[in-house]
Amino acid sequence: MKETQETATTASTTQTTPDTRNEQNPPAVLPRIVIVGAGFGGLKTAQALSRANARVTVIDRQNHHLFQPLLYWVATAGLSPADISSPIRSILRRQKNTEVVMAEVTGIDLAQQRVLMGEHAVSYDYLVLATGAHDNYFGHPEWEKYAPGLKTIVDATSIRRQILLAFEAAEVETDPQKIRSLLTFVLVGAGPTGVEMSGAIAELAHKALTSDFRHIDTKSSRILLVEAAPRILATFPESLARKSKRKLERMGVEVREGSPVEQVDEHGVVVGGEYIEAHNIIWSAGVSASPAGKWLGADVDRAGRVKVESDLSVPGYPNVFVIGDTASVTQKGKPLPGVAPVAMQAGRYVASLILQRIAGKEPHKPFHYLNKGNLATVGRSYALVDLGKMRMTGFLAWVIWLVVHIFYLIGFRNRIIALFQWAWTYLTYHRGARLITQERNPQ
Amino acid sequence: MKETQETATTASTTQTTPDTRNEQNPPAVLPRIVIVGAGFGGLKTAQALSRANARVTVIDRQNHHLFQPLLYWVATAGLSPADISSPIRSILRRQKNTEVVMAEVTGIDLAQQRVLMGEHAVSYDYLVLATGAHDNYFGHPEWEKYAPGLKTIVDATSIRRQILLAFEAAEVETDPQKIRSLLTFVLVGAGPTGVEMSGAIAELAHKALTSDFRHIDTKSSRILLVEAAPRILATFPESLARKSKRKLERMGVEVREGSPVEQVDEHGVVVGGEYIEAHNIIWSAGVSASPAGKWLGADVDRAGRVKVESDLSVPGYPNVFVIGDTASVTQKGKPLPGVAPVAMQAGRYVASLILQRIAGKEPHKPFHYLNKGNLATVGRSYALVDLGKMRMTGFLAWVIWLVVHIFYLIGFRNRIIALFQWAWTYLTYHRGARLITQERNPQ
Repeated sequence: MKETQETATTASTTQTTPDTRNEQNPPAVLPRIVIVGAGFGGLKTAQALSRANARVTVIDRQNHHLFQPLLYWVATAGLSPADISSPIRSILRRQKNTEVVMAEVTGIDLAQQRVLMGEHAVSYDYLVLATGAHDNYFGHPEWEKYAPGLKTIVDATSIRRQILLAFEAAEVETDPQKIRSLLTFVLVGAGPTGVEMSGAIAELAHKALTSDFRHIDTKSSRILLVEAAPRILATFPESLARKSKRKLERMGVEVREGSPVEQVDEHGVVVGGEYIEAHNIIWSAGVSASPAGKWLGADVDRAGRVKVESDLSVPGYPNVFVIGDTASVTQKGKPLPGVAPVAMQAGRYVASLILQRIAGKEPHKPFHYLNKGNLATVGRSYALVDLGKMRMTGFLAWVIWLVVHIFYLIGFRNRIIALFQWAWTYLTYHRGARLITQERNPQ
Repeated sequence: MKETQETATTASTTQTTPDTRNEQNPPAVLPRIVIVGAGFGGLKTAQALSRANARVTVIDRQNHHLFQPLLYWVATAGLSPADISSPIRSILRRQKNTEVVMAEVTGIDLAQQRVLMGEHAVSYDYLVLATGAHDNYFGHPEWEKYAPGLKTIVDATSIRRQILLAFEAAEVETDPQKIRSLLTFVLVGAGPTGVEMSGAIAELAHKALTSDFRHIDTKSSRILLVEAAPRILATFPESLARKSKRKLERMGVEVREGSPVEQVDEHGVVVGGEYIEAHNIIWSAGVSASPAGKWLGADVDRAGRVKVESDLSVPGYPNVFVIGDTASVTQKGKPLPGVAPVAMQAGRYVASLILQRIAGKEPHKPFHYLNKGNLATVGRSYALVDLGKMRMTGFLAWVIWLVVHIFYLIGFRNRIIALFQWAWTYLTYHRGARLITQERNPQ
């Protein structure tokens, strides 16, 4: 859209920005803050600016904020997509200084201070990029189609469909070798996502589905968790990781540590020189930042994350900030992990910094992440909690995990439904969302 | 799959039926009952055969039974797809004489008594076809892409996406004419589905979304319900239809009776000679039976429904039955409507008839449909109930509607969730499943 006629690059387009519609208004005097991405970081930034004397615009290509920590529950048929999503507009509806635009950002014009969205553009005085990350196949993009990752709702429903269809196909298959392949699940990467997925698939195969099939024994399913590093859950203390490994093994998951995946193809994976036939391969081995670094032409690290200043601004652009999984921040010589608390604290920090600048102050305090703890769940009622001094595994840890996740899930309705579904699955092992939906043929 | 070597037509294929896997077993002596379709009719047939001394096979191309009467709630973001679906295997898991096959039926070999599923086939002694219906565009199949119908989960999520994206697009649009088109919703056909959809869209536009947008006034949305017949809700008594019409109008729905749609294209519809620009057109004008009639080479009516005998068998094939929306049954000179109660009663009837035959008896009682009543809902708390002698509209009717629908919804978990979501939407007007999910690009 064109904003003013002097913007030569877009003067030929016919549409205008939403905010320029009230043409009768004088040129805006309020500072304009644009936030790209409504994940944990972007949403927290917007919420912390709710009373700002500014115009805030949140841009996201989806209409919903996604509670990614529970995405594996959707992929394993425990929750419906809508249960862990909330419309961004709905979350921010009472925040009158804020508007939400559903659009795909295509670039940043740093010189003119504009965010580009195809033919449209929007100006900013302050820009916050919180665009997240996607799966990293470490130089093997061709593996993606055989080993999908778990980042979006569509990823989750695709994996759900694949897992459920594998059992259906095995039920009507007669070749024992094919049945074995259909019932083999390989999780590549044993961070929290890989551990959670392997536990959930084990419960599905060994508990939830056992009485539903007549020809296959779902308990014969093979679930492999493969990790290149010397041990699983590298971000947790070793003692907790060791206990989790034992728990996984008791649940029927084969755990292979120090075993990088060497090859992935249509029929299986090569791990430690061994070819394992597997119909179901799921990738959770690492992430790579969104293209924000490219938009900015900024210096990035190996994972594509923008190397930011200590106040999370982009070098040379003190009014442009990068937060969350898209930013490379080191603290005490160690890179901060790509988890929700880091993104949320960064969002709050950047919002307060912008508020001070608007008030005419020049803040100097660098961003400091306060690690309040680290959580992961293994099975139906087993989690690990690392609060620094206090470490815990087992049922009590799981209750803590549950409380924290319910608390951070947005929306009262979603909390009630998630709690109910947990209770239901806890009591019955049944998973409520065992739905195979076909995709409509493109036409 | 091949069943025996003498079956020349399939002898060249390599796979075998699930049931022939136990090759060591002697040829089965139990009669084999095959049910195609696990909608209301097929599922009821299977359940009524739970104690049959027979082998029952249920074939469906989906893995789930769908509670179609609530599909419009999914299309209008009130429920998630999984809330109105249950895995067929899960419903029938305790029924040890029954197996479930997820496959697409491609034809029936009446001579050899086999159901064909591509390369596979399965033999039957008794066959029940309960394959439902799809939308009927009355000779204009090209309208389907502009005016999708509401029959499957994919239909519902597509319509949900289209409705929600229309509001998003209107929010960033500046051309008033385009905004008006984006916010115009035309429902073609005013049977229960059209009435329910128009009421739900009116609530979405006039209540649920009002505070979420900054540039458009969602209350300015235009919702048109267009019916070719002289009045809406043709299957209900006229007094109830008249009241419903007034209720719809109070909710902001424009009702046009006696107005056949003459043309549908990318930008709108022609109704009564008038061209109405509309971005959102939804088809609920009529159904056409599944291809079961073609599979059988049987005599069908105008809507493609198989003309069955008074015992619901196909003329000339006393062991082949057609029930539900796929069957053309007249009673007292009037055709039976394509509703769940007809299908379920037919399922029970056919199951009992087969049980008697297996027991060596020859039943003579023709199928008789007992109409227990007719229900439809108009808005958040308004329904119409026609129990023959007793007719009712309003809140109490809505409570009856709710109780009946919760009762027939399969699965305790689904019932609780649906009740909770109803209560939630009733109290807040908010709809929990306002999720726009992109379809993965075909690759």
